[in-house]
Amino acid sequence: MSTSSAITELFEHLQSDRDAALERLIAFVSIPTISTDPAYRSHVQRGAEWVAATLEQIGLEATMLPTDGHPAVLGLSRQEGDDPETPRVLYYGHYDVQPPDPLEDWISPPFEPAIRDGAIHGRGASDDKGQVCCFLEALRAWQRIYGRFPCPVAVLIEGEEEVGSAHLPALIQQYRRQLAAKVVVISDTTMWDSQTVAITYGLRGMLYFDIQLHGPNRDLHSGVYGGAVPNPAIVLATILADLFDDQHRLRIDGFYDDVLSLDEKERADWAALQFDERAFLGGVGVKAGYGESGFDLLERRWARPAVEVCGLYGGYTGPGAKTIIPSFAGAKIGFRLAPNQVPEKIAGSFSRWLDAQPVHGLRWKIEEFGRADPVVVQRRSPLVGAAARAIEFSSGRPPVLVREGATIPVVSDFKRLIGADSLLI
Amino acid sequence: MSTSSAITELFEHLQSDRDAALERLIAFVSIPTISTDPAYRSHVQRGAEWVAATLEQIGLEATMLPTDGHPAVLGLSRQEGDDPETPRVLYYGHYDVQPPDPLEDWISPPFEPAIRDGAIHGRGASDDKGQVCCFLEALRAWQRIYGRFPCPVAVLIEGEEEVGSAHLPALIQQYRRQLAAKVVVISDTTMWDSQTVAITYGLRGMLYFDIQLHGPNRDLHSGVYGGAVPNPAIVLATILADLFDDQHRLRIDGFYDDVLSLDEKERADWAALQFDERAFLGGVGVKAGYGESGFDLLERRWARPAVEVCGLYGGYTGPGAKTIIPSFAGAKIGFRLAPNQVPEKIAGSFSRWLDAQPVHGLRWKIEEFGRADPVVVQRRSPLVGAAARAIEFSSGRPPVLVREGATIPVVSDFKRLIGADSLLI
Repeated sequence: MSTSSAITELFEHLQSDRDAALERLIAFVSIPTISTDPAYRSHVQRGAEWVAATLEQIGLEATMLPTDGHPAVLGLSRQEGDDPETPRVLYYGHYDVQPPDPLEDWISPPFEPAIRDGAIHGRGASDDKGQVCCFLEALRAWQRIYGRFPCPVAVLIEGEEEVGSAHLPALIQQYRRQLAAKVVVISDTTMWDSQTVAITYGLRGMLYFDIQLHGPNRDLHSGVYGGAVPNPAIVLATILADLFDDQHRLRIDGFYDDVLSLDEKERADWAALQFDERAFLGGVGVKAGYGESGFDLLERRWARPAVEVCGLYGGYTGPGAKTIIPSFAGAKIGFRLAPNQVPEKIAGSFSRWLDAQPVHGLRWKIEEFGRADPVVVQRRSPLVGAAARAIEFSSGRPPVLVREGATIPVVSDFKRLIGADSLLI
Repeated sequence: MSTSSAITELFEHLQSDRDAALERLIAFVSIPTISTDPAYRSHVQRGAEWVAATLEQIGLEATMLPTDGHPAVLGLSRQEGDDPETPRVLYYGHYDVQPPDPLEDWISPPFEPAIRDGAIHGRGASDDKGQVCCFLEALRAWQRIYGRFPCPVAVLIEGEEEVGSAHLPALIQQYRRQLAAKVVVISDTTMWDSQTVAITYGLRGMLYFDIQLHGPNRDLHSGVYGGAVPNPAIVLATILADLFDDQHRLRIDGFYDDVLSLDEKERADWAALQFDERAFLGGVGVKAGYGESGFDLLERRWARPAVEVCGLYGGYTGPGAKTIIPSFAGAKIGFRLAPNQVPEKIAGSFSRWLDAQPVHGLRWKIEEFGRADPVVVQRRSPLVGAAARAIEFSSGRPPVLVREGATIPVVSDFKRLIGADSLLI
């Protein structure tokens, strides 16, 4: 039996089992596993139990992994003939969902999934319960048709992805022996378009700071003090402006030193994607792109670091006028780090750069929230090749190879803790 | 009878009537005339009625002047022997008060005035009910001792000073014939120190804007869009920073053209005041002053214009991290204008300056809130001289002549609408 005819048999089974699979997905989406809302705690628990029961049903050994928050669920294959030393393929996903507000914008209730125009509509159907079910249905079909899985498999489905996966790194560390894998398959990125699957081989990392400049011990009357004392809002604005040169390049010492540069082949491949810049910007009401000189929009998003001011605050922000000099002003600063930049190093350079700015007697108060490494994997590895062939076979079109500008911290956690590259489909 | 012995008799009467006068003040302060809070509307009305009744009691013809908000009260002397063509002395004050929050910081309840260490403690006792009563008690004493007032007198006590005096200019315009005065006496500025009365001969004007830069039609994910599109918070910060040169002088074209310069005599007089910069700054927790080069702190406050960022806002400002590019960012911009600057002219220059800034496709949304002219009067006028002699006689010390950096819009309203200079004591 050739691989291709084996796969054909599997696909035929999946087709005939489609209604039953859909019912299972609908049952899963119906559970309101809103991880951020304590009122839904028992539903989240029920979601974890649904996952564990399903893993057992398809022949994996399921274990609940409790955390101080919501549990994760681990499924391991224990099949004869597998070399216990062979690393597994690890599938990672999440069973929790975002809150469905605003409720009035839903055509059908978010936790009563409905099928319209061939698509299932319900909270979490595409993030990430639909993808989780796809992988589980594939395993179920292998088991049914061949009585075994194609290789040693591990499945890790967590319940805190939508709230920052705070307990996940510790869990991966604790279960690193069971999770030992050659590759992690994650299906939580986007399609290139509605027909074309994307394999994401690079992600940016991140660093996030809340920086505040403090001055007077209370808001001051701007008539009495105006022009006499340093204004935290003005000094902060000046420092934020000074972060960038006139090419919109960061002025932080050594900031670009480690950035992985693009080779000609990669640039050409990206150009061949014919990314629709106009649709991308127009969809969010932006007239023209803007950013670092010397790179096109896709390069700036996928291969170049960026610093964004995510929030600005200080003084009077209500309606009308209040004539004060604010006691303090602050900004939320989000770094997106390009492959090969090291968060620890950039955090240090940024902190030194801030210290070198003139603050006219004001005082810094700086807090950091979260670091994540950027990620890039070989585009021409056997794994990517295998995934590309599988995608072409099943979808009828070859996938495109892309990077994303966003950060999936778990990808760098898996790399750091168990040494596995991720395949993002 | 010499002026001085006449005044002595008046003072003796005031001394003997002190307890009764204090009772009247306590009754006035006991009325919670909180103009900003609709729940206190009937109390504010009661305050106006108290003022009208008191004016009648001391021999003035009182009229309630209704507005769309709280009423003002007008009192006019109608005494024989006064030339109807002689302009009056107009006293202006207000009977409304600020809310007394936070209540827990009051030693005695704000509307149950208590006397401690020779001072009366109650909301509004020093702003502005105490001063209003001083003037009314002086009129009462003149009437009692001499059966008449020393000159034609008008009294205008409004009820919306603490909420911006929105209806006052229209009232002054409407009653400009009755209010026709040579001089307006206002006692709503500060003492120089607890022993020394200050006559304020100059005030700064103001202009206030809310400026917003709008970009994408919603907050964007900074992973997906970071580095690709103009960030309203960064562009706004850059523009705010560019408002100032490295001497902290405004870069707006022609901004300083009309500023009245200080002569050597005025500089010397101010230096002689020995203003305690350290106490002024230390009291609000500021280590060192900061502002326009070439002027000392008092000159910057009293004679130089200033622009302050009174508020900054945009994007995510809650606890922790949210990685977005804000859809818009805004700033509250408060100008303090130096004598001879013209608000209309500066508003135009600022607007042109903003239009000339690069905004990379973002859109401005600008609102203006209030303009007021700066004011400066002759320091050596007969009126200031008379006031200074009266103050020296009554307090035992000559007053100091000062300016203030703040704005009292009614002063420029009186100048514009009835042509009267104000005497700020």
